[in-house]
Amino acid sequence: MDFTLNTFSGLVENALKAISYPEVAPKLFDPIRYTLSSGGKRIRPALTLAVYAALAKKDPSEVINQALAVELFHNFTLLHDDVMDRADIRRGRPTVHRKWNDNVAILSGDAMLTLASQTLAKGAGKHLDDLYKCFNATAMEVYEGQQLDMEFEDRNDVAVDEYLFMIGLKTSVLLGCACRLGAIMADADSETADALYRYGYSLGMAFQLRDDWLDTFGDPTVFGKEIGGDILNHKKTWLLITALEAEPEELPAILAEDLEPRETIAQVKALYERHKLGDRCQDLATKYSAQAKLELDKIDMDVEARLFFGTLADSASSRKH
Amino acid sequence: MDFTLNTFSGLVENALKAISYPEVAPKLFDPIRYTLSSGGKRIRPALTLAVYAALAKKDPSEVINQALAVELFHNFTLLHDDVMDRADIRRGRPTVHRKWNDNVAILSGDAMLTLASQTLAKGAGKHLDDLYKCFNATAMEVYEGQQLDMEFEDRNDVAVDEYLFMIGLKTSVLLGCACRLGAIMADADSETADALYRYGYSLGMAFQLRDDWLDTFGDPTVFGKEIGGDILNHKKTWLLITALEAEPEELPAILAEDLEPRETIAQVKALYERHKLGDRCQDLATKYSAQAKLELDKIDMDVEARLFFGTLADSASSRKH
Repeated sequence: MDFTLNTFSGLVENALKAISYPEVAPKLFDPIRYTLSSGGKRIRPALTLAVYAALAKKDPSEVINQALAVELFHNFTLLHDDVMDRADIRRGRPTVHRKWNDNVAILSGDAMLTLASQTLAKGAGKHLDDLYKCFNATAMEVYEGQQLDMEFEDRNDVAVDEYLFMIGLKTSVLLGCACRLGAIMADADSETADALYRYGYSLGMAFQLRDDWLDTFGDPTVFGKEIGGDILNHKKTWLLITALEAEPEELPAILAEDLEPRETIAQVKALYERHKLGDRCQDLATKYSAQAKLELDKIDMDVEARLFFGTLADSASSRKH
Repeated sequence: MDFTLNTFSGLVENALKAISYPEVAPKLFDPIRYTLSSGGKRIRPALTLAVYAALAKKDPSEVINQALAVELFHNFTLLHDDVMDRADIRRGRPTVHRKWNDNVAILSGDAMLTLASQTLAKGAGKHLDDLYKCFNATAMEVYEGQQLDMEFEDRNDVAVDEYLFMIGLKTSVLLGCACRLGAIMADADSETADALYRYGYSLGMAFQLRDDWLDTFGDPTVFGKEIGGDILNHKKTWLLITALEAEPEELPAILAEDLEPRETIAQVKALYERHKLGDRCQDLATKYSAQAKLELDKIDMDVEARLFFGTLADSASSRKH
């Protein structure tokens, strides 16, 4: 078997296209098809497939439904988050609530969550209870993360540890869950499943911190969206929170000034650079990648699989887009 | 055991109060507590408990979690429906999106759905797969019902059969599911489980049609809310849809006139009465109650249980509020 991200994401794309939807009230499902057809890296379902293939040494297609459940859940959260955040664009296309309306986004999101739950059960056999426990507990944590993220918007005293805890809930636990679902299906012992969960969790942390870094320090020609959006939105990223601690007077003053967007970005970046925040953010992302790789050492797997997971961990904190 | 609605709803109230919520992001759960503390008849969870008690002849508390799952799901749909319908008041109190805001209602609703799913699994044992299949399939049907209901708002050609199909999805399948979950937990054979599902479904139809009737023809001193709200909102009820078929010119003309609310209600009621629509709506509700009772004849149960389910079926189409 070909242990590459392309192989796994290709399986996911095909399976997403093959989902059959109920024929009653077809308009309920159009936004789901739309959301699922807009691409994305498919990292989460790829993790489920890769973990199963690595541990069980069997065809990853056997757990395609568990992989899809994770991707469906992830896309459901994007759909509802975009309503809550009033986001207009997602992956270069109008968000569901912009293309249709809020009601469509709410109800189709609900349907997507239930579809995820239904898909999780397919072919689960004796593992049903374990899969649901992991899936539902993770779902609840993701909502908690979104709740904290929204609460942070109205606060100027968010500590870095609080931020890391929040992104852990909002982002990282789902990558951990994706790994654990694959491990459960492969009949892995609990030490292996736990180590893979922590691998996924650290991978998620690396991804999110690199995301914060890219939004400010990325190369606009390859990043795929405008640089500086987080700064202009006063988004509570690692960079902003750490900078607020270092410059509690100057940073809010810059953000409050009525400047050209380009000038605001330039001044905030200069402040970040004065405190070497770009490097420190990147170092933290790299540290999480290293932590993820440490977990791999505890698991018995073939060299191909180990290379796949190791490369993925490195790329989480070194990717350009 | 005391086979009364009060007994069962009392068990449900106590169990709802005893739910423990995660301590991370407590603000996520305040709206859930608020929603669950606002009362309601608790018919759905009572059905799960009563079916289990009737078939297994065991303490209904053994299936309290499956009963709670149904009630949690039902309240989740109310929470999200109230956002979509811009409803301000529910059970005499501000709705969640009014008391807090839309984002709170969306996210807490999501958490409530996942909480329902978690609760369903508790004590499920070997029945887990059957419970989830019924629960998730029903959830999807309820969304389909809400989708059709919203689509009907923009249509003036909704046929009565379409309406009955819609309320079947939006309301009745959940009462059917509530019964089936109790039957599954009691190890009932599929004929018994199917008959009880149909009992619950017919009960739901009777309830909804009586609801339509009460909103126009109820006694304002006992109904608990203003009479005529459906008429003023141009809500596509059985009465309005049937009247539109009978008076495709006159009814829209009345609704389009700029009258005092009381006068609009009086004129529409007069039109309904000219076509005996109040009686016909009530007859249909009574027919569904009778259908529900026919299903009971197919099931082996004690006289007390039979009396409980029969009385409930009658009251669905004869209740005053």
